[in-house]
Amino acid sequence: MTSSLPTATEVDPAALTELLDGRWAKIRREIREQVADTKFREPYGLDVETHRAQVLDQLRELAATGRPRLGFPREYGGGEDIGGSITSFEMLAFGDLSLMVKAGVQWGLFGGAVQLLGTRRHHEEYLRRIMELDLLGCFAMTETGHGSDVQNLRTTATYDAGTREFVVHTPDESARKDYIGNAARDGRLAVVFAQLVTGGESRGVHALLVPIRDDEGRPVPGVRIEDCGPKAGLNGVDNGRLYFDHVRVPRTALLNRYGDVAEDGTYGSPIESDNRRFFTMLGTLVRGRISVAGSAGSAAKRALTIATRYAERRRQFFRPDTGEEIAVLDYLAHQRKLLPAIARTYALHFAQEELVASLHEIQSASGEVDERRQRELESRAAGLKALSTWHTTRTIQTAREACGGAGYLAENILPSLKADTDVFTTFEGDNTVLLQLVARGLLTQYRDDFSDMSPLATLRFLAEQFVDSVIERTSARKVVDRILEAGPGRDDDSVLFDRAWQCRVFEDREEHVLSGVARRLRRATAENAFDLFNDAQDHVLLAGRVHVERLVLEAFVAAIDRCADPAAKRLLERLCDLYVLSEIEADRAWFAEHGRLTSTRSKAVAAAVNQLCQELRPHARTLVDAFAVPEQFLEAPMLR
Amino acid sequence: MTSSLPTATEVDPAALTELLDGRWAKIRREIREQVADTKFREPYGLDVETHRAQVLDQLRELAATGRPRLGFPREYGGGEDIGGSITSFEMLAFGDLSLMVKAGVQWGLFGGAVQLLGTRRHHEEYLRRIMELDLLGCFAMTETGHGSDVQNLRTTATYDAGTREFVVHTPDESARKDYIGNAARDGRLAVVFAQLVTGGESRGVHALLVPIRDDEGRPVPGVRIEDCGPKAGLNGVDNGRLYFDHVRVPRTALLNRYGDVAEDGTYGSPIESDNRRFFTMLGTLVRGRISVAGSAGSAAKRALTIATRYAERRRQFFRPDTGEEIAVLDYLAHQRKLLPAIARTYALHFAQEELVASLHEIQSASGEVDERRQRELESRAAGLKALSTWHTTRTIQTAREACGGAGYLAENILPSLKADTDVFTTFEGDNTVLLQLVARGLLTQYRDDFSDMSPLATLRFLAEQFVDSVIERTSARKVVDRILEAGPGRDDDSVLFDRAWQCRVFEDREEHVLSGVARRLRRATAENAFDLFNDAQDHVLLAGRVHVERLVLEAFVAAIDRCADPAAKRLLERLCDLYVLSEIEADRAWFAEHGRLTSTRSKAVAAAVNQLCQELRPHARTLVDAFAVPEQFLEAPMLR
Repeated sequence: MTSSLPTATEVDPAALTELLDGRWAKIRREIREQVADTKFREPYGLDVETHRAQVLDQLRELAATGRPRLGFPREYGGGEDIGGSITSFEMLAFGDLSLMVKAGVQWGLFGGAVQLLGTRRHHEEYLRRIMELDLLGCFAMTETGHGSDVQNLRTTATYDAGTREFVVHTPDESARKDYIGNAARDGRLAVVFAQLVTGGESRGVHALLVPIRDDEGRPVPGVRIEDCGPKAGLNGVDNGRLYFDHVRVPRTALLNRYGDVAEDGTYGSPIESDNRRFFTMLGTLVRGRISVAGSAGSAAKRALTIATRYAERRRQFFRPDTGEEIAVLDYLAHQRKLLPAIARTYALHFAQEELVASLHEIQSASGEVDERRQRELESRAAGLKALSTWHTTRTIQTAREACGGAGYLAENILPSLKADTDVFTTFEGDNTVLLQLVARGLLTQYRDDFSDMSPLATLRFLAEQFVDSVIERTSARKVVDRILEAGPGRDDDSVLFDRAWQCRVFEDREEHVLSGVARRLRRATAENAFDLFNDAQDHVLLAGRVHVERLVLEAFVAAIDRCADPAAKRLLERLCDLYVLSEIEADRAWFAEHGRLTSTRSKAVAAAVNQLCQELRPHARTLVDAFAVPEQFLEAPMLR
Repeated sequence: MTSSLPTATEVDPAALTELLDGRWAKIRREIREQVADTKFREPYGLDVETHRAQVLDQLRELAATGRPRLGFPREYGGGEDIGGSITSFEMLAFGDLSLMVKAGVQWGLFGGAVQLLGTRRHHEEYLRRIMELDLLGCFAMTETGHGSDVQNLRTTATYDAGTREFVVHTPDESARKDYIGNAARDGRLAVVFAQLVTGGESRGVHALLVPIRDDEGRPVPGVRIEDCGPKAGLNGVDNGRLYFDHVRVPRTALLNRYGDVAEDGTYGSPIESDNRRFFTMLGTLVRGRISVAGSAGSAAKRALTIATRYAERRRQFFRPDTGEEIAVLDYLAHQRKLLPAIARTYALHFAQEELVASLHEIQSASGEVDERRQRELESRAAGLKALSTWHTTRTIQTAREACGGAGYLAENILPSLKADTDVFTTFEGDNTVLLQLVARGLLTQYRDDFSDMSPLATLRFLAEQFVDSVIERTSARKVVDRILEAGPGRDDDSVLFDRAWQCRVFEDREEHVLSGVARRLRRATAENAFDLFNDAQDHVLLAGRVHVERLVLEAFVAAIDRCADPAAKRLLERLCDLYVLSEIEADRAWFAEHGRLTSTRSKAVAAAVNQLCQELRPHARTLVDAFAVPEQFLEAPMLR
């Protein structure tokens, strides 16, 4: 049993906020202060055109703060603070998510591609203009016919040695670029991903800079632009479709860091394998997924703050003993809707912070990037993006329902949160595909001949030995190891609250699921590959999920270890229990089926979740206030 | 093992449609034909004012068809076909849900209240005008401060014997009428629920007719009207807020079927108990919940038809053996998203049809209504509304994700389906409250002194003996009894596909959960009542859910029994297996904890679900086409 809970007044939300703010606390505080001085314009009720115009105005205000420079090199006026850059996207996501997404398109995707796939000539020409919003751009990767399977997209960029130009072309309707942010209205230049062809030979997907509009905003000759029209949400972002009809761009338009074409048409690349080059290029874009995971977290925090405050003031039905009307948060069913979601939001927050720190270390390091670390980062980014965005979708849905009819009114914010974040589960990588990527990464143990993104590719590696230990040496892991050494004392139901037991349970589940998948897939041959993989697909997805879940728990445990405030620390210990036990409860069928939980203990888990919900109920307000969502983003009339 | 599956071409969707169309097939076919002749105007991209105007126009077109008359008495020009009336709402829900909801407000809630709570003088004055849309009205029950706990709403209607008038008054902000359909723009007259006070004594909640606008559409003196503004969805419905400042209406404005005030202020009622009168009045409004459940089903059918058609044509990644690009519906993970949802949609459809038939029988019967049957109907309506609307919310979310970015575009329909239906889980009764109502009904076995809606009220009855058998003698039940008599032959894993075993599993779960809840709650005293109930709340909700789930299974079984087409019948047998086994899979932790499933069989259930998904995959298109959603409601550009 962990130490007892503090009383509700004993915990200062500020102590929790300090821990949550973490390494980039300074940036978070600055943004909160600055936001408090700005008039925030809630976008609800705006028509699409007005909303788009408002978001563009806000984008200009944002550019003026200088924060969008954080992710770029000092040499061009950037801040060279990758972690700070991601953190500032995350903070932006407390407000209108259209602004976050449009900023992400401009500086993360478009600017990031120019920076990371381009070379000096592109940097010198474009980076300052991109940072200053003198040049708005698009990231034109996805096509109507190919989204997850980017390696097989069909736009072509054919080199013409006679004119020293690339001819960019959309061969058919399914190859049009689709859902492209900044395309319908504001973008001038696009990073276009296309199959590069030179000397009659295809060299795989590469990126080129293609102008799409002139200075007056008219589409340039050969480029056709369509508006994707109204969407479920994010209507402040101008998503559009691009068609290229033999559009010619100079040879130097190729973003040539990982592959280049000489004037005579000779292709050259520092990476020999087409596959590996493709995935190296994609890997540089990991920031986008990490930003989405962080933004999803912000949206969940905002929704939970609103729903918890409402649940404290909303009263319904009278207590027969006292005759008082009951706050809905006093009902167990309502606590079960909100408190495990709060616990999980904390857990994911700490995992996100670790992920951002890893990204920062890897992308700030000079010299060659350790490929294994890079792949590990990509895998964790994929996994955390999937878990975070699904959590956010579920949580906002629950928050809406928990606020009844009031939660359905636009003025009470939850509708736009739900609608805006809904696409997070499928953009920047479809979650189902991403979890398979995680599992594949674990199975292949970051082999050198890292191959294409197809889920089937997993199978190619399965003749290889599966390495039993999948535990990386993260910093969080050291804390867990120390706890594991102490070990659980007894084996009665109080073991449920023993952190060492909890960690072992998550670890054991992961190892069991993964080795099971490895055994199943090892039987693959070229003929049975698809069916074998497909039959095991739910098993593969489970492997990805339980791996990430273990990392999330370790991050939570390590964060508690860092907490300097004793009362806050005791509260977090209980919150972590709730996170762990509600996760075990949700998956308790697996634990029972695999002899990990007796039926008695399985029931004890559900009882423990109920107990924790009731114990933590007096702390609910403290826990959400500690998220420190700026108050101006919480001005729902139902909370007045 | 049930009989083998037919081949994909062997099943005619029309044979399934015939079964699905059921007792009110004629009305369904008429509406399909009529809809095919009408130009349907997709509302996406419309501003709120234009959308509201469009929906009002469509409401007038609908009135001209005469279908809204179906639910009203012949004496006033109605069709006196309650089942047909509900069915026509259900069909309406294939199109713009704003129209369905506005029609529901006008003819279901407003017209229904006048019909069922009023007497001849109200019928003669209003029913024709309501049917013809000469008079638009509101159903003003919910207040800002009281939604679920309607018995404690705070608007007052105080009788003034001097002028023979009622004075309707909103005492404070929390007592304003909120979310009221037709209030913000179109309504002229409102059925206002208020605490009736006469001779200084409160007589509980009653309904009165209060004019809110004059013929020019201006609010009448004393009535303040506000617009609720933009909502997550259903923006074609003009929801508003009503405040009454000592508004006087004549004594005859009281809808006086269940309670009346004589000129001198004497109160009289055919029902002595205030509580019982209140619930009798509420009970007449059961049609609304049943219509919502049916409409939710239609929205789920539309979403599944769209997502399944997309999943058949959308291809992603290549098969290594054949080199062909794989349809996403060939992936197990994708099948698992859609096929169990299709199976459950069938199951709920058949349960809905039985519910509509019961309603029709009960409300069409002449003479006194059997109170026990009426309570049973209310309980089933509450339970099915909860399960159906949650199913729809989950299913549309899944369908959206299954269509990726395309599913996020308004033109592809899913966004409005999601946004419009989202409120279904909390309006016409919050689902969490409704499931408690179901459990309470089972525990109290429809006692005569049926009391208020408070979940706590359950406790008052627990000194009473819990009746073991909760199985009602429904018509579906006879089919199940026959199957149970045959009984399962073996006890290996093939038993999973044995219908008798499946029915027993659902029945046994229900009886075990219910008797457990009864035991827990029987310990209640006046002092511990709230805490005892609250600690058991998740158990109570489970009891409600598993009860309804058993009724749903029985309805599915009975429907298969009615199926005349042998190939369609064999397909439905497998679909029913998928419904049952995916339900057991979702709840398999409970079955394991209570010694109902060994770990081996529990794993076999998951394997069986996978197998059924793959077997049913070739039939997916047939299964959704059989829903016979009119093609004009499926015109998503991504399906072109």
